[in-house]
Amino acid sequence: MAAASASLNTLCVNSIRFLAVDGVNKSKSGHPGLPMGCAPMAYALWDRVLSHNPKNPKWFNRDRFVLSAGHGCMLLYALLHLSGYDSVTIEDIKQFRQWGSRTPGHPETFETAGVEVTTGPLGAGIANAVGLAIAEAHLAAKFNRPDCNLVDHYTYVIMGDGCNQEGISSEACSLAGHLKLGKLIALYDDNHITIDGNTEVSFTEDVMKRYEAYGWHVQHVADGNTDVDGIQKAIEAAKAVTDRPSLIKVTTTIGYGSPNKSNTAGVHGAPLGEEEANLTREALGWEYGPFEIPQESYDHWRQAIDRGAAAEEAWNATLASYRNNYATEAALFERMLRGELPEGWEACLPTFSPEDKGLATRQYSQNCLNAIAPHLPELIGGSADLTHSNLTDIKGEKSFQKGAEANRYLHFGVREHAMAAILNGLAYHGSGLVPYGGTFLVFADYMRGSMRLSALSELGVIYVLTHDSIGVGEDGPTHQPVETIPSLRAIPNMLVFRPGDGNETSGAYKVAINNRHRPSVLALSRQAMANQANSAIDKVALGGYILEDCSGSPELILIGTGTELDLCVQAAKQLTADGRKVRVVSMPCVELFLEQSAAYQEEVLPNAIRKRIVVEAAESFGWHKFIGLDGDSVTMNRFGASAPGGTCMKEFGFTVENVVAKSKALLG
Amino acid sequence: MAAASASLNTLCVNSIRFLAVDGVNKSKSGHPGLPMGCAPMAYALWDRVLSHNPKNPKWFNRDRFVLSAGHGCMLLYALLHLSGYDSVTIEDIKQFRQWGSRTPGHPETFETAGVEVTTGPLGAGIANAVGLAIAEAHLAAKFNRPDCNLVDHYTYVIMGDGCNQEGISSEACSLAGHLKLGKLIALYDDNHITIDGNTEVSFTEDVMKRYEAYGWHVQHVADGNTDVDGIQKAIEAAKAVTDRPSLIKVTTTIGYGSPNKSNTAGVHGAPLGEEEANLTREALGWEYGPFEIPQESYDHWRQAIDRGAAAEEAWNATLASYRNNYATEAALFERMLRGELPEGWEACLPTFSPEDKGLATRQYSQNCLNAIAPHLPELIGGSADLTHSNLTDIKGEKSFQKGAEANRYLHFGVREHAMAAILNGLAYHGSGLVPYGGTFLVFADYMRGSMRLSALSELGVIYVLTHDSIGVGEDGPTHQPVETIPSLRAIPNMLVFRPGDGNETSGAYKVAINNRHRPSVLALSRQAMANQANSAIDKVALGGYILEDCSGSPELILIGTGTELDLCVQAAKQLTADGRKVRVVSMPCVELFLEQSAAYQEEVLPNAIRKRIVVEAAESFGWHKFIGLDGDSVTMNRFGASAPGGTCMKEFGFTVENVVAKSKALLG
Repeated sequence: MAAASASLNTLCVNSIRFLAVDGVNKSKSGHPGLPMGCAPMAYALWDRVLSHNPKNPKWFNRDRFVLSAGHGCMLLYALLHLSGYDSVTIEDIKQFRQWGSRTPGHPETFETAGVEVTTGPLGAGIANAVGLAIAEAHLAAKFNRPDCNLVDHYTYVIMGDGCNQEGISSEACSLAGHLKLGKLIALYDDNHITIDGNTEVSFTEDVMKRYEAYGWHVQHVADGNTDVDGIQKAIEAAKAVTDRPSLIKVTTTIGYGSPNKSNTAGVHGAPLGEEEANLTREALGWEYGPFEIPQESYDHWRQAIDRGAAAEEAWNATLASYRNNYATEAALFERMLRGELPEGWEACLPTFSPEDKGLATRQYSQNCLNAIAPHLPELIGGSADLTHSNLTDIKGEKSFQKGAEANRYLHFGVREHAMAAILNGLAYHGSGLVPYGGTFLVFADYMRGSMRLSALSELGVIYVLTHDSIGVGEDGPTHQPVETIPSLRAIPNMLVFRPGDGNETSGAYKVAINNRHRPSVLALSRQAMANQANSAIDKVALGGYILEDCSGSPELILIGTGTELDLCVQAAKQLTADGRKVRVVSMPCVELFLEQSAAYQEEVLPNAIRKRIVVEAAESFGWHKFIGLDGDSVTMNRFGASAPGGTCMKEFGFTVENVVAKSKALLG
Repeated sequence: MAAASASLNTLCVNSIRFLAVDGVNKSKSGHPGLPMGCAPMAYALWDRVLSHNPKNPKWFNRDRFVLSAGHGCMLLYALLHLSGYDSVTIEDIKQFRQWGSRTPGHPETFETAGVEVTTGPLGAGIANAVGLAIAEAHLAAKFNRPDCNLVDHYTYVIMGDGCNQEGISSEACSLAGHLKLGKLIALYDDNHITIDGNTEVSFTEDVMKRYEAYGWHVQHVADGNTDVDGIQKAIEAAKAVTDRPSLIKVTTTIGYGSPNKSNTAGVHGAPLGEEEANLTREALGWEYGPFEIPQESYDHWRQAIDRGAAAEEAWNATLASYRNNYATEAALFERMLRGELPEGWEACLPTFSPEDKGLATRQYSQNCLNAIAPHLPELIGGSADLTHSNLTDIKGEKSFQKGAEANRYLHFGVREHAMAAILNGLAYHGSGLVPYGGTFLVFADYMRGSMRLSALSELGVIYVLTHDSIGVGEDGPTHQPVETIPSLRAIPNMLVFRPGDGNETSGAYKVAINNRHRPSVLALSRQAMANQANSAIDKVALGGYILEDCSGSPELILIGTGTELDLCVQAAKQLTADGRKVRVVSMPCVELFLEQSAAYQEEVLPNAIRKRIVVEAAESFGWHKFIGLDGDSVTMNRFGASAPGGTCMKEFGFTVENVVAKSKALLG
């Protein structure tokens, strides 16, 4: 590429700065400080190093770029605009943070092509990037051949002080160091300012030393405000270190160029205002009006378009040669890239009848994973150090480690939050990987920040969350979820399954794996339960269905899930024997039931039948949508207790006798 | 104290090990590995260093001990039993993990005297300990005088590999290093084993170097299995370093003594079984039967009783002298220790009328905090780097920093999870401190693990969570809570307030501060709202109340909270003008409303009146408990969007017009 002159470099860097200044000023809201400080590192990276194709933001082999400090999104929008992405025009920049715009207040992958990852919640982006780097390493190990590097890209991150303070970054970067992800390169915007002021008030650790402790390669660029060449050299040096991830600490001045606001918290999250913007123009010698970018800058920046086209063309040739030489592998690779699952994969899912020995749903889940794995090479996952409790292992599948990246079992360590973010990263990679991860259901609380982002960003992550109630037993209330299931059901765009037997577990996997744009939680039991006569894989897709019915119109409907489903069936038997007309509804997935037609919902839960009891070993919170003001519930209204699981269930009223008694009381 | 012989030391150490082996074997459930490996460090600490009084577990000036690796709780129960605490008899040890026992599967402070902190969720304990150390440093700086060290104790922790992998420990220990908490000493049980096997699979960072990076003093004891003297020396050295917290890495063998299971994951969380227990007896030369402790061991261990009595007596003399010399300070100190608030403190809470300019509830909250602070010296808190957004600062109150520990504003940094755990630690300290902490409501997800522990452990922590809906505006869906309020309402023993004006905000503070054994969430708006004519501080304690009513029986009830309360009031006015009979119920705290008498609930929400509409800019999840199958809602059923807050509210239907339209549709 043609090297730019010093003055052209400055012009290009300042183009970023003033798009940020003007965009934030116009919207009267936003964060100009980071883009002004990070413009040089962003320019060095995007103009001189990053391999990407502005006219095809989804080109597979592009380098991934994550702005972990998402509040500085005007940096990213400026980069996309200047590099020639169609997704961000100058008009889009002017619509920053407005209703319906493509330039929302934090970068959202579903709104703006070229945004790889939704960021804003701090620390999540760097952890997603670890997932992106794992995806690249895995696919490279799986598909590349000595004569053909089909998968070969870097993952770059810009992160700030806030990202480094959040525990999620510690978890993820410790794991990245362990896995020696050599193609992960993070630029740390070391500007010493957070919202509460100087980092001196709370954050004085030695960040470089911490990353060294994680096993990273670390460098420091002292003048991040102007030393574009120094930054470029550091990035090139980081690329050359392939046996470790790299951190480049780049010391910058937040709001660089603003005479009165730079190096203060005041420029972090508030517009400069017109007057200070003008003073900044003077200080940086910027002769252009708001949203005005000199053609010279555009001309230089948009060399990215030709570079990108050439890079993609070269890669397409590589792919063509790969197709010729490795037809089977290429077919798999291209199927995955299309986001298609192998036809008929569901046939492998096990089915059960009441004669089959009742197991825990975590065991049914293990059977599913092991049945699916040979048919779905894109399945990849693991556990946050609870493999033999969650039963998430795939037999014969080894651990993903340095030098063994083709293996698809991930040992996340005791790092739930990083796990969820890494699973998101695997999904964000867009290469058809089907990511899953396990921990105890109660520890969803540790990773909820990233579970929410799975839902918001429409990522088909599968959370295998076992030990789903007080049935956990002896571990006691710190380990017994009570409110966890309702709290997850409250998240929009999240499917929460609590299967009631083997068939329903298979059905939950069927829906979860087919839903590549919606995350799923599988809430699975520690303890065994019976297989039902009338359950079936395909009924799970309905969310709720009539499992057992009486003749004629029922006078009572029992609604059950998970381990409590069979309590409903047994109670219904006793009530029927007493001459009562009882229906049992199995409700493995509330969200899917609510998506069914009004007619179907009415068929299952007729509006006129108000005597309804829900039985679930969790808080009743949320169930009144079905039991209304006239129903009842056998649920938990307090934290659990430490005792054998069966004792807990009995003491807290999860018995056939209690369901029958409550039913009779309601029937009057 | 009388030094024990080498053989007596071994006997005392093995007394811990075999209580753990036998307790876990009998319950057929539990974690023997950690107690067997950590017995020497626990003995060194408890027998030779720890200042505590077994016959008065709540003696104020005791050293605090936190078993952060809570699954190893048989270690703690053994220590309490051997040291002579009445809370754990040998019978209690035999009842390990059984229904109603004082020895639950993880240590719970509300079950067992002598357990300082509820642990189990990994990493939380060390973060609580940072809070305990902050409490000590704060009270010491506040009350101690040159001639009188009234507050003077250490905080000790045993933590494992899992604790160090969790991000919460990184956050808290980075802050502890920044604050130079010299009286915090953590022993790190470096045993290289987690549930998934050897730490080689996921955790190979240099932990000591990481803590050095945080600014900690670090030491290593290579033989933690037998070198009691070495451990003691390291602890003494750590005590001597008063300008930094200390980490002592103690390398141990998990399940030490078990010939076939030590140093394997198999001994982490499963009983040894009878046969292996016998082999372990042989290997360690333990000649005693199950639950049999030689008198010699008891005699030595229980010297702790006399030592403790003497220590408390000496401190009581210090307190008496303090009372004489510093009567005012002593009165405050003793009031705080009794857990009493100053009489009539509530009089300082501001009241409002509709003539007062409408502010955001976060502003009302700021006014409350500033009104309360002078009257409540025990109030201490801060923000996770959002001080000027959360408005959590107290005017004139400076930052708690090294050398300025009497200040009561805490800059937590961008570390929400550590903040919540530290607030818990301040409450666990038992010294009457009233802790509060702020962040954006949506980031409750980052600290939910510790918020749950506030509720479970009955800690009166106040969470000041601002920016409580799509009203956040431009920051967009990553920053706009939608499901957060319902998800918090689902937690047992948690009060969730969403005040609807100035009086209700004052009322929320009144209840929250008076509830010293229940955590509170204050969900507060970014944007302004009107003051209501009929709101009042004391009505908040009812949870829900009739704000506006019609004459006669209403045909429609509008239920509102927070910024949407006034929408209900305005809609009711329009509907009334149309001749409709409408009641408006304000529901600032659902949990408190549900605690009222059935008669009061019926008075506010008569069962016969089924036409009810709830208006809240959040998921409707949970509200059907009040609107049933026949009501309706103006709520959110998706994630928000980036746009000015007013635009968001309008676009998503939070307008008087829409409430009126839905009301008319429901009225038919």
